[in-house]
Amino acid sequence: MDLRLDGAALTAQLVDTPSVSGEEGPLTDAIEAALRPVPHLTVHRDGHAIVARTTLGRPERVILAGHTDTVPVAGNLPSRLVGSRLYGCGTTDMKAGLAVQLRLAAGLTSPGRDVSYVFYDCEEVAADRNGLLRLSRNRPDLLAGDFAVLMEPSSAEIEGGCQGTLRAEVAVPGQRAHTARSWMGRNAIHEAGPVLDVLRGYAPREPDVDGLRYHEGLNAVGIRGGVAGNVVPDECVVTVNYRFAPDLTGEQAAGFVRSLFSSWPVTILDVADGARPGLGQPAAAGFVAAVGGTPRAKLGWTDVARFAALGIPAVNYGPGISEIAHTAGEYVETAKIAECEARLRAWLGA
Amino acid sequence: MDLRLDGAALTAQLVDTPSVSGEEGPLTDAIEAALRPVPHLTVHRDGHAIVARTTLGRPERVILAGHTDTVPVAGNLPSRLVGSRLYGCGTTDMKAGLAVQLRLAAGLTSPGRDVSYVFYDCEEVAADRNGLLRLSRNRPDLLAGDFAVLMEPSSAEIEGGCQGTLRAEVAVPGQRAHTARSWMGRNAIHEAGPVLDVLRGYAPREPDVDGLRYHEGLNAVGIRGGVAGNVVPDECVVTVNYRFAPDLTGEQAAGFVRSLFSSWPVTILDVADGARPGLGQPAAAGFVAAVGGTPRAKLGWTDVARFAALGIPAVNYGPGISEIAHTAGEYVETAKIAECEARLRAWLGA
Repeated sequence: MDLRLDGAALTAQLVDTPSVSGEEGPLTDAIEAALRPVPHLTVHRDGHAIVARTTLGRPERVILAGHTDTVPVAGNLPSRLVGSRLYGCGTTDMKAGLAVQLRLAAGLTSPGRDVSYVFYDCEEVAADRNGLLRLSRNRPDLLAGDFAVLMEPSSAEIEGGCQGTLRAEVAVPGQRAHTARSWMGRNAIHEAGPVLDVLRGYAPREPDVDGLRYHEGLNAVGIRGGVAGNVVPDECVVTVNYRFAPDLTGEQAAGFVRSLFSSWPVTILDVADGARPGLGQPAAAGFVAAVGGTPRAKLGWTDVARFAALGIPAVNYGPGISEIAHTAGEYVETAKIAECEARLRAWLGA
Repeated sequence: MDLRLDGAALTAQLVDTPSVSGEEGPLTDAIEAALRPVPHLTVHRDGHAIVARTTLGRPERVILAGHTDTVPVAGNLPSRLVGSRLYGCGTTDMKAGLAVQLRLAAGLTSPGRDVSYVFYDCEEVAADRNGLLRLSRNRPDLLAGDFAVLMEPSSAEIEGGCQGTLRAEVAVPGQRAHTARSWMGRNAIHEAGPVLDVLRGYAPREPDVDGLRYHEGLNAVGIRGGVAGNVVPDECVVTVNYRFAPDLTGEQAAGFVRSLFSSWPVTILDVADGARPGLGQPAAAGFVAAVGGTPRAKLGWTDVARFAALGIPAVNYGPGISEIAHTAGEYVETAKIAECEARLRAWLGA
């Protein structure tokens, strides 16, 4: 891996070293090998995660973090440059961001703020495998800092905070009967109609949180019911996903869902808190001033919430495009890679 | 097997020879062995089906038919007599009926009508394995007759005809999106609400057919939808079961379901025509007059429909209780066995 390549060429090199979740070893080895010789960095490894840090004794420490894994390859390797776009698995999510981190890590010998460059594994899979979670347990000292930038795709605009997410099951009871004498039972699927009515009648909140406008969503993501082709079913279960703005805690979100479906038993399956954008805090405000643009709210859940849980304000800022993440046709605009790098360099160099 | 036993004792003997669908061999062998020596009967076998016939040259021929198989044993063997009730797998559905057939076959040496006693296999499983269907293809001559009595459980009351049954899938389309930006998609589960509204708003027909009152039913018997916990689903499929009165053909029933759900693609999965009671026809009217009671409509589908399809009017009339068929606690009132036998003997002897 040659850190002297420009951002687009380095991204191509990263993309052409496949690193589907669980198989980040070779890419992690290459990153470690490239950073170990850099004299102004101290490099640590934890499993398939790397943390490279400057230790200049600056009054402020910031974190640039990105995940090294990708979703499964979908016939979209090796990478392909077509005009201004670089195509391939992981271009947008988020190896273009890794390239920016790596070039800054190697090139910024004396930044105005101390910087921790974090490269971690298994972001695209179940939360309990997440490398940032593991790092926060094994080496919380390596994640200490005043402010974090997560290099997730955001079209080189600042996306603040993130929404929380909750899944719950709403169970509608009925009573079995033979369908030839259905009036002797109570059809749980028919009686799930009012649950769908609640979903259809739901008006999403669009609250302003720390100056950013969020947009909630409440959706059925699953429905199941039925015993046999001649039986009135005695249960119908609707699984809902509530994406809630970060002015609510997970507990408040659960309370909202329970109250909305108060006529039925509700089981909360899982909750992940969101993260307030916190753009008013000094470290974040400095970042916004240096990088420019108009920050907007992050609607999807990202590891920004993990930094928030550690008490570190964090934003999403990266060259990729979130709308095409996880698609076979994902690409990154190469100009955005250079733009992100230049703006971060200006901020960190100051 | 001793055909000189009374009806209740013979039923117990039949019940204690298990004959779950597909395993009717031993019971069929016993029936065949018991009937072969009877001088006034001609006995035919087709697989695990037996047809025993008188050939007295009477102007009219009637059929008494019953299936030998049962649903799976549910810890309810051997049979147990408790007071007036005989408990055990197949007591009510329908070995009490078989006992009546067998005693009449052996005892009625010179009935006023020629009689074909039909014992067939695999009624409780998929229609293509049904022994009566197989007989109707292999030996239609053995099923010829003017009128048929199916000894299905009917609490020793005449149940005329049977309702038809149809299953269909109603598919509601949507458009996938990430739930964090759900307004970019269209939630197929939410949009299944109007399908459930149609079901909830359905008012069942209760038509009078040939003097009997039927009661239709339209029920969701299954619902499925969902892609992943964070995806707005692009399809929701509702499976419905329409039980229709025998004044409609299967084709008309399908037309009704299609028109009811005309806003969505409908796939008809299967249809079984019902059977009109036909109690006005001479052979049936004679039966009703001899047996007495007030005939009522049969709501469940039975092989009466197969006789109807062969052009033979048929009714359900047997000592069992249809409401407890297929339950582990099924039983038969022994008095009903004797009652059925006496009434059929009076009719056939005339």
